[in-house]
Amino acid sequence: MSAYEDLMAFQRDTSALAQIAGRLGWDQETMMPRGAAAQRGIEMAAIEAVLHARRSDPRVGAWLDAAEPTDAVAAAQLREIRRAFDRATKVPGDLARRIAQVTSEAQGHWAQARADENVPAFLPVLEEVVALKREEGAALAAGGDVYDAMLDDYEPGITGAEIAAMFGAMRPRLVALRAAVLERPAPRPIEGAFDDAAQMALSRELALAFGYDLTRGRIDKAVHPFSSGSGADVRITTRTAPLDPFNCFYSTIHEVGHAAYEQGIDPAYALTPLGQGVSMGVHESQSRIYENQLGRSRAFTSWLYGRMREVFGDFGIADAEAFYAAVNRVHNGYIRTEADEVQYNLHIMLRFDLERALIAGDLRVADLEAAWNDRFAADFGYAVDKPSNGCLQDVHWSVGLFGYFPTYALGNLYAGCLHETLRRDAPDLDSHLAQGDTSPATRWLRDKVQRHGGLYPPREMIERASGMVPSEAPLLDYLEAKFGALYGL
Amino acid sequence: MSAYEDLMAFQRDTSALAQIAGRLGWDQETMMPRGAAAQRGIEMAAIEAVLHARRSDPRVGAWLDAAEPTDAVAAAQLREIRRAFDRATKVPGDLARRIAQVTSEAQGHWAQARADENVPAFLPVLEEVVALKREEGAALAAGGDVYDAMLDDYEPGITGAEIAAMFGAMRPRLVALRAAVLERPAPRPIEGAFDDAAQMALSRELALAFGYDLTRGRIDKAVHPFSSGSGADVRITTRTAPLDPFNCFYSTIHEVGHAAYEQGIDPAYALTPLGQGVSMGVHESQSRIYENQLGRSRAFTSWLYGRMREVFGDFGIADAEAFYAAVNRVHNGYIRTEADEVQYNLHIMLRFDLERALIAGDLRVADLEAAWNDRFAADFGYAVDKPSNGCLQDVHWSVGLFGYFPTYALGNLYAGCLHETLRRDAPDLDSHLAQGDTSPATRWLRDKVQRHGGLYPPREMIERASGMVPSEAPLLDYLEAKFGALYGL
Repeated sequence: MSAYEDLMAFQRDTSALAQIAGRLGWDQETMMPRGAAAQRGIEMAAIEAVLHARRSDPRVGAWLDAAEPTDAVAAAQLREIRRAFDRATKVPGDLARRIAQVTSEAQGHWAQARADENVPAFLPVLEEVVALKREEGAALAAGGDVYDAMLDDYEPGITGAEIAAMFGAMRPRLVALRAAVLERPAPRPIEGAFDDAAQMALSRELALAFGYDLTRGRIDKAVHPFSSGSGADVRITTRTAPLDPFNCFYSTIHEVGHAAYEQGIDPAYALTPLGQGVSMGVHESQSRIYENQLGRSRAFTSWLYGRMREVFGDFGIADAEAFYAAVNRVHNGYIRTEADEVQYNLHIMLRFDLERALIAGDLRVADLEAAWNDRFAADFGYAVDKPSNGCLQDVHWSVGLFGYFPTYALGNLYAGCLHETLRRDAPDLDSHLAQGDTSPATRWLRDKVQRHGGLYPPREMIERASGMVPSEAPLLDYLEAKFGALYGL
Repeated sequence: MSAYEDLMAFQRDTSALAQIAGRLGWDQETMMPRGAAAQRGIEMAAIEAVLHARRSDPRVGAWLDAAEPTDAVAAAQLREIRRAFDRATKVPGDLARRIAQVTSEAQGHWAQARADENVPAFLPVLEEVVALKREEGAALAAGGDVYDAMLDDYEPGITGAEIAAMFGAMRPRLVALRAAVLERPAPRPIEGAFDDAAQMALSRELALAFGYDLTRGRIDKAVHPFSSGSGADVRITTRTAPLDPFNCFYSTIHEVGHAAYEQGIDPAYALTPLGQGVSMGVHESQSRIYENQLGRSRAFTSWLYGRMREVFGDFGIADAEAFYAAVNRVHNGYIRTEADEVQYNLHIMLRFDLERALIAGDLRVADLEAAWNDRFAADFGYAVDKPSNGCLQDVHWSVGLFGYFPTYALGNLYAGCLHETLRRDAPDLDSHLAQGDTSPATRWLRDKVQRHGGLYPPREMIERASGMVPSEAPLLDYLEAKFGALYGL
């Protein structure tokens, strides 16, 4: 066997073990008995140690040096394996273990501090996490920009400066759109209590309508919905709240977007580095376009309105147009995960700027809360009332996820690019969506994006699919048009 | 750190990875989407390869040679690690891979042959499995008895000759008891259709009544009920059939017996070789005593009768005594897994004698069906009507499980010993069982057996717990007394 073949055979087992670790995570959030948490921590650490040893195995380095890619696919496989190998070997083992231990404990401290609304109790912990992550970032950056090295874990190839340029162009238009929309009368929300089992049944119908393949997946409930796994076993979760069926339905559609990416990848890439989504941003582009540009479109909501009337009877909404407005209601709020399409990215930009400053050393951890509150007031026009609605609301920083937040907004931005081209390529899409048929869109996305898995680097992927250099403009044009019409601006 | 501490630290991760592999098996039977089967095969092979590499790691050999046990627990840990190390290193890697591959395919051939009632189609496959397993057994036996070496995988320390002696004493008494019982009028069976959800709810109540800790476990459905996992995450499965709620209830109680053993082990042994049941036979002793000596006792069934009347109303049984007879109905049948307490061990002895002869070379695979049918007619008094009711009924041989069958009967025999002593130690047990309270028995079993995990070798464990050298006599005395009274012999 050639070095490349040896490497890929070894890599296949590594990918299989990574799938197992992922499924263990799924089990933890859906099935695990609560008394098993401590044992599960040891199990997870054991399989992560196996994975780290395989990714940093000296034989991988030797195979990588000797392997000759024979085509573009092989070159992309080597690119991804090299990236993981460099990542695994650049960070000293002691530092990696220290980060694993500190972040594991920090998550508990964060949860307690949030429950107690006690920022000072969390700051020393966050201080330590930031210091360790900066040390790790410096090891990865090898002289380059530390935050850029962190971004590379989630969105390979992009820099903080490039993101800052796009976000900088986006912020004033979003702030203005938000302000204009909120000056208009608020649409009427839906009313009533919505049966749990009926929500789950319609949720399943929506998953199928968006092309989720249940022979290679399943739907369960979890506190925080997520999608998990690649290839032939891609599971999603959703949640139900009696007064808010949209939470269930749009969580489901969002996770189906993630799952459709994984299920849609060329089976030839199964259990290889290309057999999974190429970045968090491209992944989020799929979940967001499913959820927002398709799922919250006037056409699709007209079909959903009919189905909800059939299932739930009257819920205080007179017609499909009022339903469309209810689904897309813009409302004040502190919480990122509850934000609407107009305001979501403002939440992200705030976090991006603050975490970049923290990592650069331009913002002290001690000043984080004040910086958060100032920025929130500037963008949203009202004050943060308590830390759990402010700088303590998200788990990410406590577990060391610096560089992750911007990928949510990149996903929206990529979705904007894809959607613009999709609409051009499928001019009759709305007539299908209005029948609950998403296939012209989901087929297009599978063909243009999903089937390629990790083949192309993130921005090249979006550029190939949309035919444009990714920018914030299409998303903003879409948002201004949609919400301008909805709110009569 | 000492060699022993190094070894135990390494071993903890091996045990954690083994738990993960076990949970993957649970997932496969309960949750896995059907389209994921092929990918799951690759995942299982990957983690099994990791486990095999760890168990046969040369460092383990060196640590074992250097380690000095400081107490009886350490000595027992080393005994178990040595056993696994010898097992993993004695069998050549090529042979192990060949067996894994052939048995994986053979299972499919067996299922097809059984569906087609076609013994000749299966024989060449079985021939190959037997040949490979004999080769493996010879490597493990290193000059000793090959079948004894196979037994050692499931019931360490026992020999085929010792089992044959006990079974030989058991067979005539069971054949005679069976014949006498079946000459008497058959008790009336239960009648009606039993709601699925109500069966599962009562099943859960039974699990709790037998001490199953649901904070460290869960109950799901599976085609073939099983128990899975150790320590803080021990899951069971059961099944429902509308006309046969006993199938659900006694499957649950049986699996709770297995699970209680794993849940009852001293937490100090968690994720060590002693942190799991010591053998298949001792494991089965727990499931059998829960299911039969306790669950099918006159006292407990009187409580169950009341609960079933409350849940299901009238099902054609007039009183608790008639219910006790219905639960313990002895009936003709071909299938081992459907057999009653009187006949079950006859099914096992048949398989034990045949597989021992196959491995010794005293029975040719080509003569297996005739040998099965002759023996069945001799013990049961009627002819096998088709191979799926005869030599094709069990999966075990197709997947190479030679030496496994006798542990089922050993479990019954051990349960007989434990039950005799338990009744002496807890003279008022029946008054508790009649209230649905199993705690005097389950506490006794936890204290005498379960908490010790793998500390004592199997027969020593039973001898310490019961105060007697394990033999078939207590089981036979119990069966003759119980069924003699039930059938007026």
